[in-house]
Amino acid sequence: MVLGILMLIPALLTLSMGDIGAGAFFESAIYTFLSGGLLAMLMRSRHFSLVSRQIFLLTNVSWILVSAFAALPFVLVEDMSYTDAFFETMSGITTTGSTVMSHLATVNGGILLWRSILQWLGGIGFIVMAVAILPFLKVGGMRLFQSESSDWSEKALPRSGSIAKRIVLVYSIITILCMVGYLLSGMNLFDAANHAMTTVSTGGYSTSDASMGHFSNPWVHWNATLFMILGSLPFVLFVRFLRGDRASLLRDSQVQAFIGFLIMIWMLFSTWLWLNSSYDWFESLTLVAFNTTSVVTTTGYALTDYSLWGGFAISLFFFLTFVGGCSGSTAGGIKIFRFQIGFKLLHIQLKQLNHPRAFLVQSYNGIEITNDILRSLVAFSSFFGLLVALLTIGLSLLGLDFVTSLSGAVTAIANVGPGFGDVIGPAGNFATLPAMAKWLLCVGMLMGRLEVITVLVMFLPSFWRN
Amino acid sequence: MVLGILMLIPALLTLSMGDIGAGAFFESAIYTFLSGGLLAMLMRSRHFSLVSRQIFLLTNVSWILVSAFAALPFVLVEDMSYTDAFFETMSGITTTGSTVMSHLATVNGGILLWRSILQWLGGIGFIVMAVAILPFLKVGGMRLFQSESSDWSEKALPRSGSIAKRIVLVYSIITILCMVGYLLSGMNLFDAANHAMTTVSTGGYSTSDASMGHFSNPWVHWNATLFMILGSLPFVLFVRFLRGDRASLLRDSQVQAFIGFLIMIWMLFSTWLWLNSSYDWFESLTLVAFNTTSVVTTTGYALTDYSLWGGFAISLFFFLTFVGGCSGSTAGGIKIFRFQIGFKLLHIQLKQLNHPRAFLVQSYNGIEITNDILRSLVAFSSFFGLLVALLTIGLSLLGLDFVTSLSGAVTAIANVGPGFGDVIGPAGNFATLPAMAKWLLCVGMLMGRLEVITVLVMFLPSFWRN
Repeated sequence: MVLGILMLIPALLTLSMGDIGAGAFFESAIYTFLSGGLLAMLMRSRHFSLVSRQIFLLTNVSWILVSAFAALPFVLVEDMSYTDAFFETMSGITTTGSTVMSHLATVNGGILLWRSILQWLGGIGFIVMAVAILPFLKVGGMRLFQSESSDWSEKALPRSGSIAKRIVLVYSIITILCMVGYLLSGMNLFDAANHAMTTVSTGGYSTSDASMGHFSNPWVHWNATLFMILGSLPFVLFVRFLRGDRASLLRDSQVQAFIGFLIMIWMLFSTWLWLNSSYDWFESLTLVAFNTTSVVTTTGYALTDYSLWGGFAISLFFFLTFVGGCSGSTAGGIKIFRFQIGFKLLHIQLKQLNHPRAFLVQSYNGIEITNDILRSLVAFSSFFGLLVALLTIGLSLLGLDFVTSLSGAVTAIANVGPGFGDVIGPAGNFATLPAMAKWLLCVGMLMGRLEVITVLVMFLPSFWRN
Repeated sequence: MVLGILMLIPALLTLSMGDIGAGAFFESAIYTFLSGGLLAMLMRSRHFSLVSRQIFLLTNVSWILVSAFAALPFVLVEDMSYTDAFFETMSGITTTGSTVMSHLATVNGGILLWRSILQWLGGIGFIVMAVAILPFLKVGGMRLFQSESSDWSEKALPRSGSIAKRIVLVYSIITILCMVGYLLSGMNLFDAANHAMTTVSTGGYSTSDASMGHFSNPWVHWNATLFMILGSLPFVLFVRFLRGDRASLLRDSQVQAFIGFLIMIWMLFSTWLWLNSSYDWFESLTLVAFNTTSVVTTTGYALTDYSLWGGFAISLFFFLTFVGGCSGSTAGGIKIFRFQIGFKLLHIQLKQLNHPRAFLVQSYNGIEITNDILRSLVAFSSFFGLLVALLTIGLSLLGLDFVTSLSGAVTAIANVGPGFGDVIGPAGNFATLPAMAKWLLCVGMLMGRLEVITVLVMFLPSFWRN
């Protein structure tokens, strides 16, 4: 029902611009609202005791249902096939940003706005899920960052609710600041609003086929770089910052590692680009900072076709696709804290091999790395690797070449956006893929967004018993 | 000194065939023997108490020193550059099988034999290291398979020595059986002896540029398939088998998973090939069984250029490159038991998420998966992933394209042999790569062979203190 109401925003925009298509938006809104109402009526009498299995089911079903209905405007307004519409929607709400649409300049403004709204909603939906729901389900990394216990008790529920409200507030403030930044860099209001929503959500949809390459002012690119980074930081820390704990962001070891990693990549890579191209020093730094940040934060904007920079750039961007942002942000990917724990354990392991009798404490961010946390990490990594392999093999069975299949699988699961190769590279789009490939990529995007395990748990036979 | 004596074998072969080059072999043998003697004399008075750090150092140094001297015949007999000679040797003793040599029909027979001897020695050297040395260092997976404690005590040493002797015996018997198989399939004695040594060691050097494609009899290929599999099974189980425990191989969960995985891949993939090519059913099965077994066991023989089978085949072979054989065999790669533990933990994790209050036991092969084992697994995987990324980026910085860099890095670290792309694909070779790329690949091959951690531990500053 909320989704149906939200569809009125692009509907009103379309109406005010005198475009045809407003009627189709209203139609989508009505279908969605009525279906939601019907579902609410049917389910109202049922008593739900929310045990983990029901929350798993609810989480999965709600992401799929929202995508199913949010796809309607693409079908009704733009006359897209349902496959394309669902792909565009799933790519939107998972903040992936892979698109099947082109000639965006001729597309209904309401549809462009709807795409941005989907990413903005997907971004905040993911943060709230990561902060308020997944820790209770013991999925994802947020429980490593919460000093409080996160039981789904009567007491905890209102507290989770109040944290969620504060996070929505912070998210909105950051989006408005981002929009102001774009306006000051010379964007018009429509572009600024759309890009602000897709930047802070690390989504990556643009209002132009050339993505951010459409805007020549470097301050547009630096504004995007800044707010893509902010969108990839843990939002609970922003809430603490507003509560008065000003140093919380700087003290966090995940934030330190994330920013440190980005700056190191910027320095090394921009020096290489400066030496190996005709760009001057500032252009090199701008291009590298924007594009690497876009991939690492899993946004997926492109400023230039960086795959033309040669094998080194492709190799580097390929591995950057896996990285991701911080836990509790809008970013996808493997996420910084998992690498930190992996390398922490590697370091402890080496020290232990060196000094077999030493007693070494395994801790991260002040919390002991228990067998439980390790198992969760190994389970995630095992399935992440398996999913990349299966999705790559599945795509290649449909006739895609190796580089397209591999980079397509990784970019979907990490919720980044562009892949490599002639078709789905930074300058291409996903329109010409076979329909089956689009559905496979939808599965990858959804699994990636829900920390893979959340979806997989439903495939266990015992999940459905009793 | 032993290496110097072993060089007399190809020297005598060359002499008996009346080839020029025997003198150069004797020269290499003398240099190597004298250097070994000098080293032994210099070190004889030193007292070694073998604590872990010295064993780490000794392990690393001996693999590098053996390669450095074993490369001499390639320089002196074949007039190769030292870079090429060292690459060929390192690829040999790590049983990788990537080659810089072509026109093998015109190459000195002694050199071909020397390549095979290097792989055969590398294979048995690796098993003995994995069974007798690494468990004491707490590296690798063998400690998961030993019921006895593996302390490097006065008592344990002779027992390790006697197990090592039995393993050498088993290894020799299997090699002879393999040679007999090749002879019965119509190979001549020279080819049969060479290929027996490079099959059982899962090395992959051949006496022909066309690798196993040179032999048209399918029984050659099935003999190779059988013995590549035997070379990838845990050799301690063969020893138990000979001692009378006939069921030991069938009961082992790693062996079951390995064979099961291979048969599943054979069935699915050969059906696909049969349906999508002009090969008949038996040809499809032979080609698929041979080539997938060659890659999974990290042997690296090629029967045809399977990269011409299209994107699906390339994707599948790419991921098969990572798999590897069983722990305690000659095979490299990530190895089956690590996948088993990963998926075991994934399964337990899913069950735990489903039933948060259940108490689930984490065990593998009857041994509890402790925090210690988990840490070792995470440390291995983290560094394996990082090494693939760094080596790929390093190779692409030298001008190699993305597919060559990525597949070259993986094939080296997993000790497989061929990569993908026009240059290093199954039909190509490594000769034209820049010298620096060859050295990088040597680092990758050595690290892959020594379970990555064994080399990395020496880069810890505290390793060198005191």
